[in-house]
Amino acid sequence: MIARIIEVEKNTMSQTVGVVKTEYFTFAQESEKLMLESGKSLGPVTLAYETYGELDANKENAILICHALSADAHAAGYHEEESDPGWWESMIGPGKAFDTDKYLIICSNVLGGCKGSTGPSSINPGKGKPYALEFPVITIADMVNAQRHLVDHLGIERLLSVAGGSMGGMQVLQWVASFPEKVRSAIPIATALKHSPQQIAFDEVVRQAIMADPDWRCGDYYEYGQPERGLAVSRMIGHITFMSEHSMEEKFSRKLRNGKYSYDFAADFEVENYLRYRGDKFVKRFDANSYLYITKAMDYFDLSGSGLIPLGRDIDTRFLIISFKSDWLYPSYQSQEIVRLLKCNYVDATYCELPSTYGHDAFLVDINEQQELVRHFLDKTYNGYSVVSSYVL
Amino acid sequence: MIARIIEVEKNTMSQTVGVVKTEYFTFAQESEKLMLESGKSLGPVTLAYETYGELDANKENAILICHALSADAHAAGYHEEESDPGWWESMIGPGKAFDTDKYLIICSNVLGGCKGSTGPSSINPGKGKPYALEFPVITIADMVNAQRHLVDHLGIERLLSVAGGSMGGMQVLQWVASFPEKVRSAIPIATALKHSPQQIAFDEVVRQAIMADPDWRCGDYYEYGQPERGLAVSRMIGHITFMSEHSMEEKFSRKLRNGKYSYDFAADFEVENYLRYRGDKFVKRFDANSYLYITKAMDYFDLSGSGLIPLGRDIDTRFLIISFKSDWLYPSYQSQEIVRLLKCNYVDATYCELPSTYGHDAFLVDINEQQELVRHFLDKTYNGYSVVSSYVL
Repeated sequence: MIARIIEVEKNTMSQTVGVVKTEYFTFAQESEKLMLESGKSLGPVTLAYETYGELDANKENAILICHALSADAHAAGYHEEESDPGWWESMIGPGKAFDTDKYLIICSNVLGGCKGSTGPSSINPGKGKPYALEFPVITIADMVNAQRHLVDHLGIERLLSVAGGSMGGMQVLQWVASFPEKVRSAIPIATALKHSPQQIAFDEVVRQAIMADPDWRCGDYYEYGQPERGLAVSRMIGHITFMSEHSMEEKFSRKLRNGKYSYDFAADFEVENYLRYRGDKFVKRFDANSYLYITKAMDYFDLSGSGLIPLGRDIDTRFLIISFKSDWLYPSYQSQEIVRLLKCNYVDATYCELPSTYGHDAFLVDINEQQELVRHFLDKTYNGYSVVSSYVL
Repeated sequence: MIARIIEVEKNTMSQTVGVVKTEYFTFAQESEKLMLESGKSLGPVTLAYETYGELDANKENAILICHALSADAHAAGYHEEESDPGWWESMIGPGKAFDTDKYLIICSNVLGGCKGSTGPSSINPGKGKPYALEFPVITIADMVNAQRHLVDHLGIERLLSVAGGSMGGMQVLQWVASFPEKVRSAIPIATALKHSPQQIAFDEVVRQAIMADPDWRCGDYYEYGQPERGLAVSRMIGHITFMSEHSMEEKFSRKLRNGKYSYDFAADFEVENYLRYRGDKFVKRFDANSYLYITKAMDYFDLSGSGLIPLGRDIDTRFLIISFKSDWLYPSYQSQEIVRLLKCNYVDATYCELPSTYGHDAFLVDINEQQELVRHFLDKTYNGYSVVSSYVL
């Protein structure tokens, strides 16, 4: 039944890009290996990616979307035989903020991921089995460097925009730091120049929960199955930080599953049940080692000081920075630090703090105003006119 | 060397109660079993407790201190052969806020605990081995009911005050709800009338981390050893929530242990090292099952609505309510809910939000102003004069 409804939607909703397919690009073969920040090298490297829309004649309408911690290249539309759309379906499509009638949208799974791009669960060609912990520790700069190879491969010299939330926003900032000449505009959302010790602490607990599970087997679990219990606990911690206290109160309050206390250790409260469900669901779709590598990359990321804009470098990338008032994982002050750094370096930057109550999840789920901000900002960048620069909520 | 310094301090510092000893009170034997909120009964019940100071002739100067999640009866002074003082040494002693020259201070380990009071690690007399999960789920009201037996046993009809922070504050509120005639004044600090879904969520993840450890063995681990890895992860989560973002920044910032990134999964950052250290230390001193039972009791606690003050009941208990601006685990709005409920019921209540940056830990570590507030409040309660009621910071 759901499948049929989806089918109808696919056919009739003009706002979706419809059925899409993931593609794969492999590079850094043999002598051309990808040099990593750690000093190690990696190759061959495959990136899974999707594109929506068409490149224009001047190749000036390409937008790169960067995903957050546990997402993938499937940002919009539907995969054949699947009922869930891509993770930013609400933002990408005909007539939407990332308007596929105007722009070519590209999204790739990050290096280190587990959704088709090379990561710890990929086969280590030298060994004929998954890398596991022999996969080198990678950084956000390494992820972006890999994406740059993909963008070159697609024949795009300069991106109209790079956009993303959370870790996606870190990649946006890293694009400007690494390849400023290739980025006409940048949209970092709900992100930071660097993790605070509290953010590092949450990531460390997430990693410890995975590594504490004996089924993790020092990373060598691929022939036995995932460290499911540890990974589920990790994800439960994550979900608490993604929501605001307010949105938890709205969604769950102290609602009981069975109307009364069980007086045992069952899930009495709806919120407990929700977290258990989320944890269990996650272990079916995400590789535990990828979770370790990607959180480590986020913790290492630090573009404060002269990291984003080296001394003496002129940046003509335009910025739209968005944060959410109720986001306590990436609080607004961190976005304001980005804005301050940019403004002090004469960079064109617009900043909006949106009043959503959804916490860090807001950039994925509460997109009405975000939609308009992005739409106008891209219009202005592409067409050279707009009203956005004075638009502050 | 440390032992010698401590020895000198014990001898010369007038502010400590000096060497103290834990005592034990056993009740609820055979036909007199303790009835629990769940409908089950429990007995015999032992409470470990300590007292500091002397009861006055009228038996009107006794103050009960209630401890938080992982503390115990040892609130002040030093145990023979130990160098660490009790957990609220800064607040209890001669000339301190809880002045042992004036008052008799009592502190007992909670029912369900693992520091001498009956809990899941105690021997189940019917079975000759630890209760483990056969221990009944207990509530804050059950803890307080057990304390009431101890207070009766000590010959005290009415307490001058009941005081405590966090879960200690819940017990304070429960004392007023259960035995209002026995409580002349109440000092709930950094606490709440009920857990929000976010607080329940953190507790649930803490429990899941323990229960996910195969060494937990469905609670029956006593002959094998603790589920150390799960319990350590639990405590790491706790420590993040006890500190504020600000105090983490002050203490750790992004300081690296070895001055550079390891590019592996070692603890690169000081904050990671601190959490691992705290986790490892905790498993040596606290029973995993007690952690499950006590967090569950906190989640069940709910004195909102008419729970604290049943309709038509007159309360002449005086209240001092304290919260801390940077405490995001028990945010000030929760203390303000207590104040509102009291004021609407014509109860004498003074409220102060203190500007400490230490987060939830503040009631244990940042006590200068708290000390003065409590001192004046107790003076007024005991002597019937003071200036405290207009003292609002």
